[in-house]
Amino acid sequence: MEGEWQGMYDVMIIGSGPAGISAALTAKNRNLEFCWFGSKGLSAKIEKAGQVGNYPGLIQVTGLEMRDIFQQQVEEAGISLVTEQISSIYPMGNSYAVNVKGEMYEAKSLLLAIGMETTKTILGEERLLGRGVSYCATCDGFLYKGKRIAVVCTNPQFEEEIAFLADLADEVTVFTTYRGFCLERGNIHASIGYPSEIKGEKQVEALVFQGMEIPVDGVFCLKDSVSPSVLLKGLEMKDGHIRVDRAQQTNLKGCFAAGDCTGRPYQYAKAVGEGNVALHSILDYLKEQ
Amino acid sequence: MEGEWQGMYDVMIIGSGPAGISAALTAKNRNLEFCWFGSKGLSAKIEKAGQVGNYPGLIQVTGLEMRDIFQQQVEEAGISLVTEQISSIYPMGNSYAVNVKGEMYEAKSLLLAIGMETTKTILGEERLLGRGVSYCATCDGFLYKGKRIAVVCTNPQFEEEIAFLADLADEVTVFTTYRGFCLERGNIHASIGYPSEIKGEKQVEALVFQGMEIPVDGVFCLKDSVSPSVLLKGLEMKDGHIRVDRAQQTNLKGCFAAGDCTGRPYQYAKAVGEGNVALHSILDYLKEQ
Repeated sequence: MEGEWQGMYDVMIIGSGPAGISAALTAKNRNLEFCWFGSKGLSAKIEKAGQVGNYPGLIQVTGLEMRDIFQQQVEEAGISLVTEQISSIYPMGNSYAVNVKGEMYEAKSLLLAIGMETTKTILGEERLLGRGVSYCATCDGFLYKGKRIAVVCTNPQFEEEIAFLADLADEVTVFTTYRGFCLERGNIHASIGYPSEIKGEKQVEALVFQGMEIPVDGVFCLKDSVSPSVLLKGLEMKDGHIRVDRAQQTNLKGCFAAGDCTGRPYQYAKAVGEGNVALHSILDYLKEQ
Repeated sequence: MEGEWQGMYDVMIIGSGPAGISAALTAKNRNLEFCWFGSKGLSAKIEKAGQVGNYPGLIQVTGLEMRDIFQQQVEEAGISLVTEQISSIYPMGNSYAVNVKGEMYEAKSLLLAIGMETTKTILGEERLLGRGVSYCATCDGFLYKGKRIAVVCTNPQFEEEIAFLADLADEVTVFTTYRGFCLERGNIHASIGYPSEIKGEKQVEALVFQGMEIPVDGVFCLKDSVSPSVLLKGLEMKDGHIRVDRAQQTNLKGCFAAGDCTGRPYQYAKAVGEGNVALHSILDYLKEQ
């Protein structure tokens, strides 16, 4: 772990959907020292939602209206959000740490409100993680100076990172899950689609797309969310979700989870409720420590 | 069970606090046939709440403002509420039934969103229920024509029922947990306070208040909420709350619970989340039937 230490927080909240928002508001209310990581605009998923008819307190709002109200509430509460993607969380015994753009954040407890990944893991992705597969352009880009890489991108917000990679690598083959990729560079070749496999024995050797093998030295997966068990090693899953009890406690000490990542129904009310409960469990946990 | 049968509903929701509201909105959304029982004004507890700062979507509202928004939302959704207190729920094998003012409601599933009773059970109350102790003036008042009764009352909204009882009974001794009881009748004697015990071998014989025994033939407990295990026989409790799993399922088939009655934290967000989850579990349950 490198990076300038930002001090010890009470809790680190990862995710800025309804569960994270609920937890952050309650953490602020209870005067906790917390750091909060999420997306610009809080949640692309909320923003894109149609009419929401069953969330108590907001009468027939659109997803966009809901997002705007949440945004205003968070701002008025004076809560700030770090909008860098977290690709790894390090358990430190009695705390958890993340490293973001040269800054190291550490907290006594952790709340995962990371939503439900909608893009599936590519065959070989987890096995070759750290051996040619990376989730972080800033962290690992320099390893591919003059080399051939592929980038799998699920959100236009990551295009900046692709530009950064294109300055380093010789050849960049980009696969987007959306239309309208508009970065133009001589060494970028872009296609729409999702690769089926990452190949390689001990190190990434090739990417498979539509049955064709494309030889590459590294693969950057710039996705909205990474698999929870990749994000935090040792986290117990159940049917594709983080396993929690009624207090939102995971199998790891001091680590709690809330919202879609803990299971169905994928509903705003459920997420908001779980974020609140998790934060209260964290208050209890901090008291015991 | 007497009363005119109102048809078979998909679900019966008991309670109109945040959990009940959340469940009712979702039930409406999902086109279920449901009957909903609660209080006039939805929830006295919300109404009396001070500033609410951590409920996502409502920015620094007072309890009264929150209640008004909920009320408007319920009305705009076209949901109607039966504002009679339920004192007993009858399990009917594959359904649940209640009897309210001559009408019998039956539903395939049940959601208890009954909040947390803040007044404790009086010593002897549960043991002598049905043997001189009653929760329902309308149902049992006629049994005490010309007799001496006591009434324990926690909410001015029940004073109408006390007036009804005073027309039947000879002597009515009233204990209120609030100031400002203003019913004046020759045969009513009112005090502020809460009795400590109801005495009697096989039948109510006396009420104990401040160490004094007051001989009575019956005791009416008109309280905001009755103990869940009295409301529905066989319901499993844990540390004073209804025991539920993560799907909000109780130990009884087809019976779910949500909100404060299932445990801490007593928070709007938690209640709203659980009401939503319970209703989704009920959708699954109805599909299986």
